[in-house]
Amino acid sequence: MTRVSIIGIGQTSVGEHWDVSIRDLGAQAVLAALHDAGIERPDALYVGNMLSGPLASQEQLATLIADWSGLRGIEALKAEAACASGAAALRVGYMAVASGLHDVVVVLGVEKMTDLDGDEATIALMNAADAEYEAIHGTTFISLNAMLMRRYMEEYQVPHEAFAGFPVNSHANAVYNPQAMFHQAITRETFVGARMIADPINLFDSAPIADGAAAVVLCAAERARELVPHPVRIAASSVATDSVALHDRHDPLFLAAVYNSAMKAYRQAEIGPQDIDLFELHDAFSIIAALSLEASGFAPRGQGTRLAADGEIGPHGRVPIATMGGLKARGHPVGATGLYQVVEAALQLRGEAGKNQVPDAHWAMTQNVGGVGGTAFTHILEG
Amino acid sequence: MTRVSIIGIGQTSVGEHWDVSIRDLGAQAVLAALHDAGIERPDALYVGNMLSGPLASQEQLATLIADWSGLRGIEALKAEAACASGAAALRVGYMAVASGLHDVVVVLGVEKMTDLDGDEATIALMNAADAEYEAIHGTTFISLNAMLMRRYMEEYQVPHEAFAGFPVNSHANAVYNPQAMFHQAITRETFVGARMIADPINLFDSAPIADGAAAVVLCAAERARELVPHPVRIAASSVATDSVALHDRHDPLFLAAVYNSAMKAYRQAEIGPQDIDLFELHDAFSIIAALSLEASGFAPRGQGTRLAADGEIGPHGRVPIATMGGLKARGHPVGATGLYQVVEAALQLRGEAGKNQVPDAHWAMTQNVGGVGGTAFTHILEG
Repeated sequence: MTRVSIIGIGQTSVGEHWDVSIRDLGAQAVLAALHDAGIERPDALYVGNMLSGPLASQEQLATLIADWSGLRGIEALKAEAACASGAAALRVGYMAVASGLHDVVVVLGVEKMTDLDGDEATIALMNAADAEYEAIHGTTFISLNAMLMRRYMEEYQVPHEAFAGFPVNSHANAVYNPQAMFHQAITRETFVGARMIADPINLFDSAPIADGAAAVVLCAAERARELVPHPVRIAASSVATDSVALHDRHDPLFLAAVYNSAMKAYRQAEIGPQDIDLFELHDAFSIIAALSLEASGFAPRGQGTRLAADGEIGPHGRVPIATMGGLKARGHPVGATGLYQVVEAALQLRGEAGKNQVPDAHWAMTQNVGGVGGTAFTHILEG
Repeated sequence: MTRVSIIGIGQTSVGEHWDVSIRDLGAQAVLAALHDAGIERPDALYVGNMLSGPLASQEQLATLIADWSGLRGIEALKAEAACASGAAALRVGYMAVASGLHDVVVVLGVEKMTDLDGDEATIALMNAADAEYEAIHGTTFISLNAMLMRRYMEEYQVPHEAFAGFPVNSHANAVYNPQAMFHQAITRETFVGARMIADPINLFDSAPIADGAAAVVLCAAERARELVPHPVRIAASSVATDSVALHDRHDPLFLAAVYNSAMKAYRQAEIGPQDIDLFELHDAFSIIAALSLEASGFAPRGQGTRLAADGEIGPHGRVPIATMGGLKARGHPVGATGLYQVVEAALQLRGEAGKNQVPDAHWAMTQNVGGVGGTAFTHILEG
């Protein structure tokens, strides 16, 4: 199997891009990544996207963006795994290079969610849940996460304010990320006083919908150093799944897909959680941040929030997470998020993360989760 | 690179499956293919589907169907390339095994289009076109193909009835395919007298919308003979793209993506069109059948319909196509079609095609097209 490296990265800012269409947004990130890699024409484009069908009436999106990027003719297809669609596309690109079928491929994550009103996006996002056994009861994606958070708080006797550390860290880090959606730090008090969205989830427990696109260029690791000064090797790529419906799980507070994908990734990279210098986790909701830390081996069960409380998750802490703002403050354009995580991790490993630089970062882990833990992709990067 | 073989096939009937949901339909084909291969638990499931979002409010479909098939936990993701989504999933599965990352994977194509009224499906299918430059003018997928057919008839001075051979052949073959949607043969007169849908496309020029699911099990070719008596080797897998919008092409009557994917496939398999014993092409419209034969090297430009007129496309002809009914008469559940083509080609290569058996079939080619030629996947199978 050919080893695979990232030789180029590109991203648009995250926010409300009403002035450009989804094809423009995607092409901007593709061209930025190709420019960064010094590549003119890759062999293939794999696109992660969840909602271009319902929100833009556009499928065959990968072919469309390939053409719009000046790459008419190349192989192109779209990958979907709900909110983990970005990492799903990375997985496909990884396999394309690992197989030896392609020399150089581009992987893009792109989503445009703010053109319609917020209700449309909320309804479309519910496609990530089980339509016949969850959506039919009138739940939304936020209310499913709210039930999970409530159960966690009850089971472990954790007060709501224990989660404050996650958004406080994310917003602090986003201040220095020029591509982030929010650039304002918040305090514990801001969190505690925030308005409720779906009890117990308040405004700062949940990531915002957004528009954005991020891309990476992949090639064989052995060629990477000839092409660029700072390639980032993909040391592990893994996927695991669970039931889509929350109520189908024996233990809803254990994210089995996250656990299994993380364990597979550690085995492939031949390292453990103690070796990870930064962890771009899927903090779509603060409860998912806590559960992901636990399932990935960074905290005992029920103690995920303690890492945040103890100041361990900042850029200089023991387990830096959301180092460029995370889903919470960089923003969460769902199908693009998995690629933003990888672009940001690559910036860290290349030493280009500015004021948020994690010192001596060598191993980074990115984790992209579809639905309420239904699908989990874990990638480990070596800088 | 590991060589890849098909060791199991499964399919549901094509038609109106109002009694089952999309997850049931998909699981039926997955379990049939696993049973055929004698495999209990594959490493991954890749699902081709175009419309589960708009028509069933369900994404994260691959994870859902993996769980419903008793495979909770395995790797799963969905691939999309409009009407070529089935072949896109096959491409991903092929790369997963070719890379050595997985030993055994299942690839499923599934679509459920008849639960809502036909207008909903027509609107959703328009997502395959360019939303901002084609759909915005009120075109439908059928009217785009109608413009293409009109141009062909004008440019080459071909009368409409010259296309009769395609649906006549498809319907004749479907009679003996128990899984096909239609089991009634038609005559040239039926074709000529059929009601118009979008001039010059009449009822028998266009494939029906339908529900259906088809699946294959893949493993390394070197292991295949230990597992099953009649493995089918994937001798070539290729993809090429074009502009999504028809008007963006220099020459709309030349399907460049079809041409490029076919030529790449011939090179990979080290054979030419003269070696192909049967060709499951993408006859969503009879005009696409003609153009695909031309772009794939089976007929000179403007003469695709002659093959049909000369009786060369039947099971005993020189270029058998749509041997089990094709999209026209087996039915066209869009995201599933690419896998139906492969399952039917495998039946031919295993000598299990019954009354439609192509004698001494050794090489089969399948071709799945997204949009009006925007994306084309070509696979060559060796039996």
